[in-house]
Amino acid sequence: MKKHNYSAGPCILPKEVFEKAAQAILDFNNSGLSILEISHRSKDFVAVMEEARALVLELLGLEGKGYQALFLAGGASLEFLMVPYNLMKVDGKAAYLDTGTWANNAIKEAKLFGETLIVGSSKAENYNHIPKNYSIPADASYFHCTSNNTIFGTQMKSFPNTDIPVVCDMSSDIFSRSLDFTQFDIIYAGAQKNMGPAGTTLVVIKEEILGNSGRMIPGMLDYQQHIAKESMYNTPPVFPVYASLLTLQWLKNLGGIAAIEKINEAKANLLYTEIDRNPLFKGVSAVEDRSLMNVTFDLENEAHQEKFDAMWKAVGISGLTGHRSVGGYRASIYNAMPIESVQVLVDVMKELENKI
Amino acid sequence: MKKHNYSAGPCILPKEVFEKAAQAILDFNNSGLSILEISHRSKDFVAVMEEARALVLELLGLEGKGYQALFLAGGASLEFLMVPYNLMKVDGKAAYLDTGTWANNAIKEAKLFGETLIVGSSKAENYNHIPKNYSIPADASYFHCTSNNTIFGTQMKSFPNTDIPVVCDMSSDIFSRSLDFTQFDIIYAGAQKNMGPAGTTLVVIKEEILGNSGRMIPGMLDYQQHIAKESMYNTPPVFPVYASLLTLQWLKNLGGIAAIEKINEAKANLLYTEIDRNPLFKGVSAVEDRSLMNVTFDLENEAHQEKFDAMWKAVGISGLTGHRSVGGYRASIYNAMPIESVQVLVDVMKELENKI
Repeated sequence: MKKHNYSAGPCILPKEVFEKAAQAILDFNNSGLSILEISHRSKDFVAVMEEARALVLELLGLEGKGYQALFLAGGASLEFLMVPYNLMKVDGKAAYLDTGTWANNAIKEAKLFGETLIVGSSKAENYNHIPKNYSIPADASYFHCTSNNTIFGTQMKSFPNTDIPVVCDMSSDIFSRSLDFTQFDIIYAGAQKNMGPAGTTLVVIKEEILGNSGRMIPGMLDYQQHIAKESMYNTPPVFPVYASLLTLQWLKNLGGIAAIEKINEAKANLLYTEIDRNPLFKGVSAVEDRSLMNVTFDLENEAHQEKFDAMWKAVGISGLTGHRSVGGYRASIYNAMPIESVQVLVDVMKELENKI
Repeated sequence: MKKHNYSAGPCILPKEVFEKAAQAILDFNNSGLSILEISHRSKDFVAVMEEARALVLELLGLEGKGYQALFLAGGASLEFLMVPYNLMKVDGKAAYLDTGTWANNAIKEAKLFGETLIVGSSKAENYNHIPKNYSIPADASYFHCTSNNTIFGTQMKSFPNTDIPVVCDMSSDIFSRSLDFTQFDIIYAGAQKNMGPAGTTLVVIKEEILGNSGRMIPGMLDYQQHIAKESMYNTPPVFPVYASLLTLQWLKNLGGIAAIEKINEAKANLLYTEIDRNPLFKGVSAVEDRSLMNVTFDLENEAHQEKFDAMWKAVGISGLTGHRSVGGYRASIYNAMPIESVQVLVDVMKELENKI
């Protein structure tokens, strides 16, 4: 049976990525060697890393604008501490927007480095919306936000105008929609949603903001050292970087971010329309802040849960259960999710309505 | 043509690991999903992580002895700073043995945390031997050493007796030889030599030594937090962990460390015997400290280099060029390298002798 993988991450990737990645494990570039056994200093892998770094900047429209792309290891959670290590001045402070669990994890790490101001929070409403009308102190070292909240299904539709560096955790919506990416000074994202498999983290940095924190930074946590070594400060996670390159190539061939954005809007529209139309269901997050990536919804009547769960499982849907801190359902409809799979879910929702 | 992959790391892995890993990318455990798209919280992946962690302790003979195994991301280079963060007391000091480039990189990071004593060094002789007869101060927070020096081809044959915690970077010889592993309190190793592909780092920790540094440790750098979350503090590098499990299973099926040690000794003996016998070649490192993993050697007369290089390339050998800081040649003969491949190299060395 065909599977419809709604996992929140790691998540669905394009089928051609799986096929090419499996082939490269058996024989990479007709070298007679596996991608898993070649040196990261080999000509073939250096070319992978260079193409991946360049393609990121090309897709984001950041070529020639003073940005560098790095593929690091450790997960986006490591960036939670690398950001303050590199940017928060000694005796300085930083401004954070609190939009959910991951924003909170970033805040927790920042507090170890200095004063961490929460300039806005939707915690009291269990993060069902994005805070608005907050102000950012001009003397903070940087402003940090999370563009898409995987767990709660909210997404920032605009970003504040400020003169201080803007750092954005885009783990769950990078490469999914058109934005003016020059408004950010650091963008970071764990690969395992729209970019590739778990095991590497993309960091895009406007180079000129670095070098001012006044801290002694361990080499492995120092963005400047990673940039100087062209993302090869130490052995990079070779296979995750390669599989990410395959995913970025797939996106480019599809027409880039502008093309995938249209598909993502169509998918989200299809599902939210059904949630709003079908009397058995309700959306969880504020309508104006609804995520195009993670659609959180619930049954109006939990007595229907057993029947609904059996129905979506029967058609090959997996990963639809909501996160424990929200409950209900979460449909993660990342870039690689085809609209046909969303239609399968919508059909099940309609079928439930007919049966009740 | 069959390839003989002498890369220093990432390096050769067992062929069955490549085959099973490629299959899991197309369909993992007959789930209809790729190993690259499943949730790290799925039953199937949790089982992978649990088996990998348990198998490490079993292979090292550390089951039920108060140790925990973690599969982290970031590379062994991240451990260079996690070790002092977790173990070096505020206002305390640490003792390091300086046996080469990687030991030096560890020392550099430790210095950011406090007094870092170099208790022995072979730097003056370009690290061609392991320092001996050094003493370790009893009031240091820990002693750190590198068991095998990939670049220089030296290997510690014994380890000092001391009452303070012993931390060992075993990146390039873990799972290759029998040792009393209870003499170590932390063992860490980047996967990409004997354990799997690049992208995960094994850390084996005697749990009782943790929690005494008096430092505020960021979550992602805190061994206790990783242990509490059973190596899932954040999304782990799913595929590298899975491929590592496949490699550990291969080793166990072969008979474990005792079995591979015999094979490794036979391979190293074959090659060193030829280096010592053949008048055209010489070994680089001190005989008593020769590594069983990385065999460094050179031509007596560099005029023969062009001919020798053409000959080994012609028979499908790759990755034999020595590291730039040593020169000459380096044959990395990790666990997965078959003795037949070592024989091919030895045959080329004999052939060169016959031709000169």
